[in-house]
Amino acid sequence: MADPLCHPALLTDLYELTMAAAYFDNDFRAKGSFELFMRSLPAERSYLIAAGLEQALDYLENVRFQASDIDYLRSQKVFGNVSGQFFDYLRDFQFKGEVWAMPEGTPVFSEEPLLRVTAPIIEAQVVETYLLSIITFQTMIASKAARVVGAAQGRDVIEFGTRRAHGPEAGTLAARAAYIGGCKGTSNVEAGRRFSIPVFGTLAHSFIMAYEDEEEAFRRFEDIFPDNATLLIDTYDTLAAIDKIVEAGLRPKMVRLDSGNLIELSREVRRRLDEEGLPETQIFATSDLDEHVITEMLAHGAQVDAFGVGTSLATSKDAPTLSGVYKLVDVFGGQGPSYRAKLSGGKVSYPGCKQVFRRTGPDGKYKEDVVCRCADRYEDATPLLGCVMSEGRRLNSAPALPEVQRRAREEIARLPDSCRRLHNAVAYPVRFSRKLQQLLEEFRNRVSPAAGKPSVR
Amino acid sequence: MADPLCHPALLTDLYELTMAAAYFDNDFRAKGSFELFMRSLPAERSYLIAAGLEQALDYLENVRFQASDIDYLRSQKVFGNVSGQFFDYLRDFQFKGEVWAMPEGTPVFSEEPLLRVTAPIIEAQVVETYLLSIITFQTMIASKAARVVGAAQGRDVIEFGTRRAHGPEAGTLAARAAYIGGCKGTSNVEAGRRFSIPVFGTLAHSFIMAYEDEEEAFRRFEDIFPDNATLLIDTYDTLAAIDKIVEAGLRPKMVRLDSGNLIELSREVRRRLDEEGLPETQIFATSDLDEHVITEMLAHGAQVDAFGVGTSLATSKDAPTLSGVYKLVDVFGGQGPSYRAKLSGGKVSYPGCKQVFRRTGPDGKYKEDVVCRCADRYEDATPLLGCVMSEGRRLNSAPALPEVQRRAREEIARLPDSCRRLHNAVAYPVRFSRKLQQLLEEFRNRVSPAAGKPSVR
Repeated sequence: MADPLCHPALLTDLYELTMAAAYFDNDFRAKGSFELFMRSLPAERSYLIAAGLEQALDYLENVRFQASDIDYLRSQKVFGNVSGQFFDYLRDFQFKGEVWAMPEGTPVFSEEPLLRVTAPIIEAQVVETYLLSIITFQTMIASKAARVVGAAQGRDVIEFGTRRAHGPEAGTLAARAAYIGGCKGTSNVEAGRRFSIPVFGTLAHSFIMAYEDEEEAFRRFEDIFPDNATLLIDTYDTLAAIDKIVEAGLRPKMVRLDSGNLIELSREVRRRLDEEGLPETQIFATSDLDEHVITEMLAHGAQVDAFGVGTSLATSKDAPTLSGVYKLVDVFGGQGPSYRAKLSGGKVSYPGCKQVFRRTGPDGKYKEDVVCRCADRYEDATPLLGCVMSEGRRLNSAPALPEVQRRAREEIARLPDSCRRLHNAVAYPVRFSRKLQQLLEEFRNRVSPAAGKPSVR
Repeated sequence: MADPLCHPALLTDLYELTMAAAYFDNDFRAKGSFELFMRSLPAERSYLIAAGLEQALDYLENVRFQASDIDYLRSQKVFGNVSGQFFDYLRDFQFKGEVWAMPEGTPVFSEEPLLRVTAPIIEAQVVETYLLSIITFQTMIASKAARVVGAAQGRDVIEFGTRRAHGPEAGTLAARAAYIGGCKGTSNVEAGRRFSIPVFGTLAHSFIMAYEDEEEAFRRFEDIFPDNATLLIDTYDTLAAIDKIVEAGLRPKMVRLDSGNLIELSREVRRRLDEEGLPETQIFATSDLDEHVITEMLAHGAQVDAFGVGTSLATSKDAPTLSGVYKLVDVFGGQGPSYRAKLSGGKVSYPGCKQVFRRTGPDGKYKEDVVCRCADRYEDATPLLGCVMSEGRRLNSAPALPEVQRRAREEIARLPDSCRRLHNAVAYPVRFSRKLQQLLEEFRNRVSPAAGKPSVR
C-alpha cells in the first residue's frame, strides 16, 4: 500500500517522464533553472497574491515513485525502448534541488517569477505539473479572496465554497488560500483541521424542513447551540420567521438570509430585530455573493454584519484560470552558453535566473517592480525572492497561516490605490532591467539570426 | 496515522456536523431523502453528462471519522454544549443508506435529480458537501469535454490540463471526466494509472531549449522514442524546424504546433511534410484551444490530426461552476406528512422522491423528459434513475470506463441536433408531471397559507 505521506510522482504529465527518460538515456546530467510565473493577468485582476508555496515545498520533500508506479510505467508501450537503468533511477528518485520563492502573501504581477527551481534537469522537470497546479490555483483563490474581502469593508467574509469547488480537495486548498487572502475562516472542517483555520457554520434549509414546524426547528437548534446559533430564516417566509423567533423567545447569535432582495430584506430584518429587543443578533448574508454584489449591497445600505461567499470564491468564477508557466531559463553544465529562452510567437520568455525588486515611494506605497538578473542589486529596493529550499530540504519551518494572512493584508495596503480598484484598476508598473533586455537580444541573435524575418502568422 | 483507504468525514461543511449534533441530541432519528440536481444550466451549456458517481459511491462506502478527527471536533468551542454520546456516535459512523442514480455518461438537464440518497438524516446530511463537489465537478468537465470532442469532428482530443486545474487532484478527476466526455486520453499519468485511461505525451519547450541545438534535441528524443516521438517544433521558428527534421532524416510520429497562427502554420507544415516524404507524420495542435477555436480552425482548413486541450477543458473555463444542490425532499418516520420542499424566493424545489423518464421519438432521438413521483410509471419511456447502493454497499461493480465513454457517446448522439449546437442550442424539453405540480401546490398551501402574499423582494 502507498505511504500516505508520500506524494505520488505519477501526478505529472506523461511528457515529463518521457523527457526524463530521454535525458537519462542520453546521459544528459546538467542542472537547469526553471522559473514559475504568470504570463499575464486576467482582465478582472490587477494584482495577485502568491499562495501555495507550503504545499509545493511539502510535495518537493516527499515526492516518490512507488514500486507499483514503476510497474505501471514499464507496462506502457511508450517506454518500450527505455533502459532498465532509468527505472532504477526512478525507484530512488528524490528532489534534491534548490528553490527560491516569494513568501506566501506577497502581491505579484504578470511575468514576475514567483518561484525558481534549480536542480538536475530531470528532477526539475518531473515536478513541473504539480508545482504549477498547486501554486497557480492557490494564488488565484487568494487573489480573488482579497477582492471580496476588500469589498466587504471590514465586515467578516467566510469561505463557504467546497460544495461547488473543483472536487473536495480543491475546496480544501481553496479554503486555505481564501484565508491567506483575508477571509476570517471557512466552512470546510478538514481545512480547519489540516491548516488550523477557524471554521464556521450556520444551518441548512434541510434542518428547517426536517421538522414539520419552522419554529420547532429553530428551538431545537438553539437548544444545542445556545451561544452561537445562526438561524436560517428564508426557508418559507423570511419576515414571518423573525416573528417566530421573537415569539419563541429565542436569542440567536445571527440570522442568515439566503434568498430574495438582500438589501431590502436585511434592512427590514435589522429593523424588526432592533424593535423586538434583539439588537445583538447579527445578520449573515449568503446567496451567490461576490465582490461586486457585496459592493452594491453595502452602497445601498444593506444591514449585513458578515458575508458567506461560496461558489464565486472557491472557483474564482470570473477568472477561473491563471496563465501559469514554468520555463527553463538557464542550464548549468550543459553545452555552450547557459542562458535559455523561448522565442515562440507571442510567448517570449526572458533568459537567465531573475530576481524581482520592489521600490517604495515617499508615501510608503509601492511604486514599481524591476525584474532583473539574479546577481543584480538595487540599493533602494527590496528583493522579493528568497532561498527557501536547499538540497531538497526546507530551510525554515512554515510560517503560521495567520502570519501569512497578516502579511498579505499589509502588503495589499501598500499597493497604489489605483491598482486596488475592482473596476478599471491601473496596471502596477513592472519593468525588465536593461541588462535583462540585452540578454534577450543576445540570445535571440545567437539562436535565430533571422528572427527579424516575419514567420507565418 | 490515517488509513489511506478511508475518506475523511471532516471533508464536509461545519454546519453538516452542527446539524448532526442537533439531530442527535434532540433524538431526531427519522430517515430522509435528498436529491442532487442542478438548478439551471450555464448559458453556455444545453446539456450535461452525468459523471462522478463512482467516486461518490467509493466515498459513501468508506467515509469514517478518525479518532483524531473527533478530538479536533471536541476541541472546537461550538460543540461545547453537545453530548458525549454524539461523539461516540461519530466514532462508529458509517453510511448505511440507499442511493439511486443516473449511470455515468447519461445526458442530464437542469432540475432533474441525478442522484438520490435515502438514509438516517444525519448520515444523509454529513455526506452532502463531498457528494455535491465530486459529482458536480466531474459532470461539469464531462459536459465540457463532450463539446470539445464534438467540435473536433472525429479527430482525437487529448486532455492536457492538470497544470492549470484547481490543484493536482482536481486535474486527476478532470482527466477521468474528460475521458467520459469523449477524450481519447490524458497527459496525467496518475489518472492513467488510477482509472486505466490511455496516457499521451509530447515534448516540452524546455527539452528543446536544454540542448544548444534544436536539431540535436530532436535527434536525442527520437533515439529513445523511435516509434512514437511527437516533436515540438515552435520553440524558435516552426518552419525552420521542419527543415531540420528533414535534414536529420527523422521520421517523427507527430509534430506539435503550440503557437502562432495554427491554421496557416498547420497547412504549411502539412505541405512541407508531404513534399519531403513524411506524409505519415501527423500534426498535433495545442495552445489555448477550446471548442470554438477548434471549430474555427477546421472551418478554415487547418490540417490537424489531433488536438491537445488543457486549461479550458480541465477547468470548464467558460462555465467553471454548475449550480448543484442537494435538497431534502422527503422525511420518513418524522412528524406529519412526509413530503418536503423549499419555497425560498427564486429557489423553489419540488417535494417528494422523483424519477426521470426519457421519451424517444420515431426517429430514435430523445424528445422529452418527464420528472415525476418515484412511484409513477410511463410505459412509453425509460426511467433514468436506478438503485446503485443499498445499506451502504454498492450493488454492482463499477462499469469499465471505456464502457461509460461509449454510453455517453451513444446517448449524446440521440439528443436532438438542435440541442447539441455549440451556439444558440434549443433547450431540451423537460417537464414536471401534473401530480408533482399538485404536490408542490399542496405543500405550499400547508406550510405557508399566505404564500400568495408577496414578500419583500
